[in-house]
Amino acid sequence: MKVILMSRADSAATWAEELRRQAPDLDLRVWPDETEGVDPAEAAYVIAAKPPPGEIAKLPNLKAVLSLWAGVDHITGDPDYPRHAPIVRMVEEGLTRGMREFVLAQCLNAHLKTYEFVQQQRQQLWRPEIRGRHGTEPLVSDARVGILGLGVLGSDCARALTAVGFRVAGWARREKRIEGVDCRCGPDGLQAMLAQTDILVNLLPRTPETEDILNADLFAALPDGAYLINVGRGEHLVEEDLLHALDTGRLAGAALDVFREEPLPGKHPFWTHPKVTVTPHVASITRVRTGVERLVAAIAAFERGETPPGVVDPSAGY
Amino acid sequence: MKVILMSRADSAATWAEELRRQAPDLDLRVWPDETEGVDPAEAAYVIAAKPPPGEIAKLPNLKAVLSLWAGVDHITGDPDYPRHAPIVRMVEEGLTRGMREFVLAQCLNAHLKTYEFVQQQRQQLWRPEIRGRHGTEPLVSDARVGILGLGVLGSDCARALTAVGFRVAGWARREKRIEGVDCRCGPDGLQAMLAQTDILVNLLPRTPETEDILNADLFAALPDGAYLINVGRGEHLVEEDLLHALDTGRLAGAALDVFREEPLPGKHPFWTHPKVTVTPHVASITRVRTGVERLVAAIAAFERGETPPGVVDPSAGY
Repeated sequence: MKVILMSRADSAATWAEELRRQAPDLDLRVWPDETEGVDPAEAAYVIAAKPPPGEIAKLPNLKAVLSLWAGVDHITGDPDYPRHAPIVRMVEEGLTRGMREFVLAQCLNAHLKTYEFVQQQRQQLWRPEIRGRHGTEPLVSDARVGILGLGVLGSDCARALTAVGFRVAGWARREKRIEGVDCRCGPDGLQAMLAQTDILVNLLPRTPETEDILNADLFAALPDGAYLINVGRGEHLVEEDLLHALDTGRLAGAALDVFREEPLPGKHPFWTHPKVTVTPHVASITRVRTGVERLVAAIAAFERGETPPGVVDPSAGY
Repeated sequence: MKVILMSRADSAATWAEELRRQAPDLDLRVWPDETEGVDPAEAAYVIAAKPPPGEIAKLPNLKAVLSLWAGVDHITGDPDYPRHAPIVRMVEEGLTRGMREFVLAQCLNAHLKTYEFVQQQRQQLWRPEIRGRHGTEPLVSDARVGILGLGVLGSDCARALTAVGFRVAGWARREKRIEGVDCRCGPDGLQAMLAQTDILVNLLPRTPETEDILNADLFAALPDGAYLINVGRGEHLVEEDLLHALDTGRLAGAALDVFREEPLPGKHPFWTHPKVTVTPHVASITRVRTGVERLVAAIAAFERGETPPGVVDPSAGY
């Protein structure tokens, strides 16, 4: 039984090293150098990060494809993705905690107008009044956060934001229950949530249904001066619609961590827009040590005939 | 019995309006317009924000001076400040919560390198690696926050940072106990805490002992690459020492909300320093509604012969 690490990400060597450290008995082969001459029928598992299109489909006896990342669109985006084996998304504590910390910071920054103060500093302006009328400046308990997507990451962020004092609502395709969070679902639920959202956090998975969801119609359903945080995928966002919403004042600002093209191209208007904060896809990063623990545990579960957590629903695509 | 509102801050009218709304029976006089011709012997309480030097000392029968702010150095900085009456600092939920939210945001930003990413954006640089080696990026549980000052605000911030997952230590003049927080005191305790602090938050009161405490000696006791957050007073910081510590790489950055001269003068090097984030004294703001509730309650307590919370210890100066 062979395990293939098939990654076109820079971090492949780091993952291979940690896999060999934690599971020395695993017959691990790193694609492409170590898979030459291997009989495709012997490959039982693929650990994947941006696998080359068509490559996984060549392995007929796969038991599972294990994603290094929380999103699996880097696998399902391939029209020939392996429908003969389950895909398992990465669910690990480091990635969940990292996302929680990043989203908490960005929500606080939206609430505190951190990036507006950064802009003021560039102009050497001293204007405390942008936080509100003196003595009545809002607290986080006055700020309404709406979260798109209530999977592992969205639910965790919802709980963390609630604990800090934000008023939190969330929306998912299917009905969910999270204590202290106003959970909505379906198209009507989305409109209802948007109408009461000051800070919108996108944590949806990327599927054909969610692509382009952050568009002019959605922005029109938000209150004036709302703030957008995109930590989902670049493909969720219609970039021209965002620029228009910012320039007309419909949205007050946006913090974007993901983009249709990464790295963000040199001449892209997001780089220089005064209301846009760009971060280079750093919100959520799978931690290698805890990530490998999950991969090893998932393989062990499959070998025992059990189903590990995080198996993707093929009909939903996430 | 007369209550004098003696304020040289812009917000005097707002406070007077709210005081009259909440306590219509109070004989409130706003200095200087409404105090002309008033017998100084009739003034029982002064509600003060930057009172003019020598003015409070003229009132012989004062029962208390109530500060609109948490810090009382705007009163005790006057060499003629009224030692014949107790000074009460402002302790109110809005101010405490506001400080908690601001400090939490700045600690997360220091940890996540938010302002370094802002600098990168200006240069159109895509460098996720500044957060650490891929797959081993630190979480807040790896970040050690040290808080100078464990009064109402410092203790509250310590608890909030602990709840979010930071490793938190704190230092105060006197011994304190806060669950989950490594509390230190005395000169040795200060050195021990600094040696293990990645993010230093200053929340000390301003007294003759604490002025200039953020100086080259203190920076030398921090690990290389530590980060400074000053939300205490501008007078705590030796500005040239900070600039030197930033330029030599001893400190990685600083978020400064308070300054020796406010507004920060136009040509000050902090405005343009790439490692300094300037905010215009917005961290902690007394909220008028809850603040007036506290003022009215404090006067009622004194009238019943009781001592309200927040009375300043004259020997300590805070």
